[in-house]
Amino acid sequence: MKQINAEILTIGDEILYGQITDTNSQWMSAELDQLGIKVVRKTTVGDTEEAILTAFEEAESRADIILITGGLGPTNDDLTMPMLARYFDSEIIMNEAVLNHVKDFFERRGRVFTELNKRQALVPKIAQVLHNELGTAPGTWYERNGKVFVSMPGVPHEMKNLMKTHVLPKLQQVFQTPVIYHKLIKTVGIGESFLADKIKVWEDNLPEHVSLAYLPSVGHVKLRLTAVGEDREQLEKDVDLLIKSFLPLGGDYVYGYDNTTLEEAVGDILKKTGKTIAFAESCSGGYVQHKITTIAGSSSYFQGGVVPYHNDHKINLLGVRPETLEEHGAVSGACVKEMAEGVRKLFKADIGASSSGIAGPGGGTSDKPVGTVWIAYADGEKTITKKLQLTQNRELNIKLTEIAVLNLVRKRFTT
Amino acid sequence: MKQINAEILTIGDEILYGQITDTNSQWMSAELDQLGIKVVRKTTVGDTEEAILTAFEEAESRADIILITGGLGPTNDDLTMPMLARYFDSEIIMNEAVLNHVKDFFERRGRVFTELNKRQALVPKIAQVLHNELGTAPGTWYERNGKVFVSMPGVPHEMKNLMKTHVLPKLQQVFQTPVIYHKLIKTVGIGESFLADKIKVWEDNLPEHVSLAYLPSVGHVKLRLTAVGEDREQLEKDVDLLIKSFLPLGGDYVYGYDNTTLEEAVGDILKKTGKTIAFAESCSGGYVQHKITTIAGSSSYFQGGVVPYHNDHKINLLGVRPETLEEHGAVSGACVKEMAEGVRKLFKADIGASSSGIAGPGGGTSDKPVGTVWIAYADGEKTITKKLQLTQNRELNIKLTEIAVLNLVRKRFTT
Repeated sequence: MKQINAEILTIGDEILYGQITDTNSQWMSAELDQLGIKVVRKTTVGDTEEAILTAFEEAESRADIILITGGLGPTNDDLTMPMLARYFDSEIIMNEAVLNHVKDFFERRGRVFTELNKRQALVPKIAQVLHNELGTAPGTWYERNGKVFVSMPGVPHEMKNLMKTHVLPKLQQVFQTPVIYHKLIKTVGIGESFLADKIKVWEDNLPEHVSLAYLPSVGHVKLRLTAVGEDREQLEKDVDLLIKSFLPLGGDYVYGYDNTTLEEAVGDILKKTGKTIAFAESCSGGYVQHKITTIAGSSSYFQGGVVPYHNDHKINLLGVRPETLEEHGAVSGACVKEMAEGVRKLFKADIGASSSGIAGPGGGTSDKPVGTVWIAYADGEKTITKKLQLTQNRELNIKLTEIAVLNLVRKRFTT
Repeated sequence: MKQINAEILTIGDEILYGQITDTNSQWMSAELDQLGIKVVRKTTVGDTEEAILTAFEEAESRADIILITGGLGPTNDDLTMPMLARYFDSEIIMNEAVLNHVKDFFERRGRVFTELNKRQALVPKIAQVLHNELGTAPGTWYERNGKVFVSMPGVPHEMKNLMKTHVLPKLQQVFQTPVIYHKLIKTVGIGESFLADKIKVWEDNLPEHVSLAYLPSVGHVKLRLTAVGEDREQLEKDVDLLIKSFLPLGGDYVYGYDNTTLEEAVGDILKKTGKTIAFAESCSGGYVQHKITTIAGSSSYFQGGVVPYHNDHKINLLGVRPETLEEHGAVSGACVKEMAEGVRKLFKADIGASSSGIAGPGGGTSDKPVGTVWIAYADGEKTITKKLQLTQNRELNIKLTEIAVLNLVRKRFTT
């Protein structure tokens, strides 16, 4: 199969001058990559006629597909439409369908529709119009000599919606790209190389049409399975089977698939089992509770918690024994044990979990250097404590502690 | 003065294929803009000889300065150095200073120095080497026919350090750009247009060599003053005077300058006044405590706090009266008042602050729609409550509540 190449062209002074970050082109690259279309260049130019026309020419000389974003506002700075008209030797006309949509869009929002707004409906006659339901500037599509130009607004959610509903399906049709199916397996509690070791035989035996990528991020490793073929249903089945054979090897570390987060996964477990939870966070400073409460509906399993930053409060609120602190210090298995058991009782929850550690940059000793963190889980029957040796970086230590606490809870339900 | 133009060239398949976001070029654009150097194009190409050489040629035809990042690793995929050597018709030599630095770099980290690592010290003979103290790949600088090429590693903190310590000062020298001085004024608690109204006369009377930009972000508005001239000390004085005349107009909303965060500003106030604080967070779910504890040394003023997610705990732990909850509900001025006063006593802190609200997406009523939030401040003498009407978005409501709580504390010390 011939390799299909694309170029992404971003138009706008605000990107050139560093006023906004271009996140569009990364998203577009990744989507095109899923269709087997290779991005060979990304270009950003400013709002000048010459720069835009030169960029069109250069892009057409290199790529089969030219995806353009930006420069579509209704003011005189916005040159993408007139330059496309000139490039394709076409006159500019008022598109009635777009005009009605823009009018309607303003009316529904109670905003005044002005003469200037009308200009959003001016498009090159030669263009195929792609309906932008989320905004006023339409997408437009041009084909000439086997090459495709697409112009889209730069507003990320408008561009993404146009790509998903119009552009990607049309590209798939025109260039007859294969069907691609992705599934993310999300793991926690194991490093990339250890995981790779565990699943080596499985990975080596993946069928030809399925590939695997490791996507590590703070505290997590995602595995992306990509299956390429012609029939989406068949690909889904293939991937499901592969995941079944994966689980006996790496299943202990899997907390979910695709967009599931760890805090959602833990929330789902608690909801399903009808258990409630409370947290006592010292070094993680409330971050576990923050993550838990970002999930809508978390009040059905999250009772609450404390951040007993000073030792007095560990004693008074949670019932940690002064002798424990004297003998072992606050950063110890004995202390987090009593914290987890104490917060469980205080909040009348089924489960208590806790953290205490030296987040840094100061406060380390030779016995307990910066990055030493203890965490605990208690459910009335059993209390489990765990020591972590983390990093020199305070913010990273807070995040890694949060992940470890949630994973400690998760694992009690899977093993 | 002649306009100096720059092009930013990013080299690497991982950027083209959407595996990582390019944040470097935005930062570089903004820095160049501060020197009055205009970025006229940004280009990203993959790791192929032809693409890189063509990009060099095209960039040189358009720009005076070509800033290149990426493609500097020691493996065969990394082509930037050999292509620069070919482009500038220069042989590649082993640079002893770089070699020693790389060896040293590995030794100090206890990592094994291999033959492959030696290749980091191979640079075109014609290049001026820019010492990269934070990494192993050096920066290199080339001048020909009044144009400057600079190659830097793509790792953001290495690139930024090279830019600040070597590249920007050298560009300033070679192209004799004016001195530019920036100061950020950071405000909270007022919207962009209200602030603009308040300071209109001041803004209209800014001297010619000083300009103002509004940089809004979630819950905050930053004002960036940019002064252009020849003498940095004079510019600093000019800007300081302007800030003095700004403060009577907008000073109530200013929490700091440049890189200061709101949580740092509040921490500094508490440290300076010797006051301690505790928080009772319902709808903000621990996020205020998380932000406060990201600051190293916060244990000197942060006693701790609770997240009494269920009403029972508001009663049992904080002493909120059951009648208050019955009469007014948990999302009420009466409830947050008792929460702030209660948490202050519970943690024996000088100040207590609290939140309770409907973060959404569910749980709204016609009386108290999603986004209704109450916050309170108590210091033993006075208790202040405040009602916020926020958004439909849960995560945004949590963040906006956090900012409002910290700002409520801050304002008690400034008014």
